[in-house]
Amino acid sequence: MSKERFEELRRQLDAVNQDILEVLNRRAELVQEIGQLKSGKGTERFDPIREKEMLDKLVASNEGPFPSDTIRHLFKQIFQASLGLQEEEKKSLLI
Amino acid sequence: MSKERFEELRRQLDAVNQDILEVLNRRAELVQEIGQLKSGKGTERFDPIREKEMLDKLVASNEGPFPSDTIRHLFKQIFQASLGLQEEEKKSLLI
Repeated sequence: MSKERFEELRRQLDAVNQDILEVLNRRAELVQEIGQLKSGKGTERFDPIREKEMLDKLVASNEGPFPSDTIRHLFKQIFQASLGLQEEEKKSLLI
Repeated sequence: MSKERFEELRRQLDAVNQDILEVLNRRAELVQEIGQLKSGKGTERFDPIREKEMLDKLVASNEGPFPSDTIRHLFKQIFQASLGLQEEEKKSLLI
C-alpha cells in the first residue's frame, strides 16, 4: 500500500465527513422551520406515517454500499435527533 | 401557514434526505477502500485515535443547529455502521 494513497483517502474521508455535517445541519434547519409552521397550527410534530414514507423512499433509492437496514437505522437516529432539537426549542420558548 | 410553503419545505426535506443518503454511501465506499488497503497490510480497522480526531474536527467546525453532542452521537453511529460493513465484507471473503 502506498502511504500517499492512504493519506489521500484519509483527506477524502475528512472532506466527506464535513459534507455529511453540512447536510445534517441543513436538514435540521428545515425541520426547525417545518416545526415552527406546525406549532402555529397546533399540529403534532412527530408524524410516524411521514417518517415511514421518507424511510421507504430512501430505501427504494439506496444503491449501497450501505445495506438498507443500515440506512433505516441511521435515518431513524437522524429523525430522532431532529425531534430532540424541536423539543429543546420548545422548552427554550417556554422559559 | 400556507399549504404551499409547507409542501415546498417537505419537497426540500426529501431532497436533503437524498443528499444525506448519497454522502453516507460515498463515505461507505471510501471506508471500504481504506479497509482493503489496511487488510493488505494487516492493520487493525478500528482506530479509536483516528475516530476521536475525526469527531473533534467535526465538533470544531459545527455551526448548528444540531448541538455538538448530537453531532458526536450521529457520527459514532455512522462510524459503527462503516465498521459493520467491513465485517460483512470480511465474512463474505472467508466463505
